Amino acid sequence: MAAFTPTARSQVRRRPQRAAYDEAAVYGVLDAGVMAHVGYVIDGQPYVTPTAYWREGRRLYWHGAAASRMLETVAQGLPVCVTVSFLDGFVVGRSGITHSVNYRSVMAFGRARLVEDIAEVRAAMDAFVDRLYAGRPVKLRPTTDDELRRLKLVEMEIEEASAKIKDTGVGDLPADEGWGAWFGVFPVETRIGAPLPDPRNLTPRTDDLSPYAEGARLDDALATAAARTYGAPVST
Amino acid sequence: MAAFTPTARSQVRRRPQRAAYDEAAVYGVLDAGVMAHVGYVIDGQPYVTPTAYWREGRRLYWHGAAASRMLETVAQGLPVCVTVSFLDGFVVGRSGITHSVNYRSVMAFGRARLVEDIAEVRAAMDAFVDRLYAGRPVKLRPTTDDELRRLKLVEMEIEEASAKIKDTGVGDLPADEGWGAWFGVFPVETRIGAPLPDPRNLTPRTDDLSPYAEGARLDDALATAAARTYGAPVST
Repeated sequence: MAAFTPTARSQVRRRPQRAAYDEAAVYGVLDAGVMAHVGYVIDGQPYVTPTAYWREGRRLYWHGAAASRMLETVAQGLPVCVTVSFLDGFVVGRSGITHSVNYRSVMAFGRARLVEDIAEVRAAMDAFVDRLYAGRPVKLRPTTDDELRRLKLVEMEIEEASAKIKDTGVGDLPADEGWGAWFGVFPVETRIGAPLPDPRNLTPRTDDLSPYAEGARLDDALATAAARTYGAPVST
Repeated sequence: MAAFTPTARSQVRRRPQRAAYDEAAVYGVLDAGVMAHVGYVIDGQPYVTPTAYWREGRRLYWHGAAASRMLETVAQGLPVCVTVSFLDGFVVGRSGITHSVNYRSVMAFGRARLVEDIAEVRAAMDAFVDRLYAGRPVKLRPTTDDELRRLKLVEMEIEEASAKIKDTGVGDLPADEGWGAWFGVFPVETRIGAPLPDPRNLTPRTDDLSPYAEGARLDDALATAAARTYGAPVST
């Protein structure tokens, strides 16, 4: 099974039993999300910008307006950390220190580069729509070169990545025994709500949008959409 | 109305009409969340660590195990960026470039310091439980000093912060007119699932847990819990 090789940068030090470096674990988290937190440094000051992203193989992509400070900076080939996380639950204990949260997260490290070739930008932007809504690009009004020039696209080869997952019940302690407080887990679920068609819309929803049915789990919808576009995820 | 004063660091350059610097807007986002992405720098390399946080006044707090690299680093008084964001929807257009996401986010800047006094740590850890579950600390088995020494608590005075919110329909363009693709918004909602009591639990759920009822929106639950502990949010 293909895996990332951790160095001091990505090695998980706390609770290493919760960490994984194989592509299946890392891509499992990355393909279940659409919002990343991109960390970069300007003059020693860290910035963390939330942004939509997508993955193709070992590459992550994100984009924004041409004037974006974040994109301007990261596209210079500076080191970047891209983190994706999901809150999965509140763990509620019978003592303060047994309270915690369940989560899935990935930290991915690399250097971003600006994609400048307009044909490459067009292909990548189509790939983003396709990754979210398999088969949609051909249904859309084609983007013009002028429109593409108004955005900046960056790509980052993942050099190292680690996944960390916590999915536990309460770590009740001997000292907590007999203490009369409710203890357990409140799961947290992110789902698609009722669709809001534009008032001018005249077209029924097509199959490319089907993963985003009302009530669908967002992580499932995104993973399903990615599998439709890229094929089944790597085996575990 | 009290507000943060932006400098070049926190001034939103892209789409400034979506930005706000007043406490009501910033705290509105911060008090609706529990997971932050903390950005910091070690030897020029940015790191973004997801972590649970809470707010009291202009201070943010987070904690972890005493051996945590993140806490060890940020507690040295280095500059930190704490970002909180929520994905609120997928905006689906009739051309590639009118696809986007709706979101709420805050970037908060400051320097973290380690809280070392054990009584202060105890009070803050109780405050975290109380912020999430108003009135719960008195129901819990008291934490020992040894247990408190095994964790590191950091506090950060927010020096600057900006909120950015996008909550729009499709920015349909003249060129998209007549194009036969469904367009509109898929809202995204994060809610509390069915509670999972620990198999050993014998105690009914008490009022401190009531905001986390099955089906409650997570942002509402957290904002309600914060208001119960700290009073109503600052007026807008």
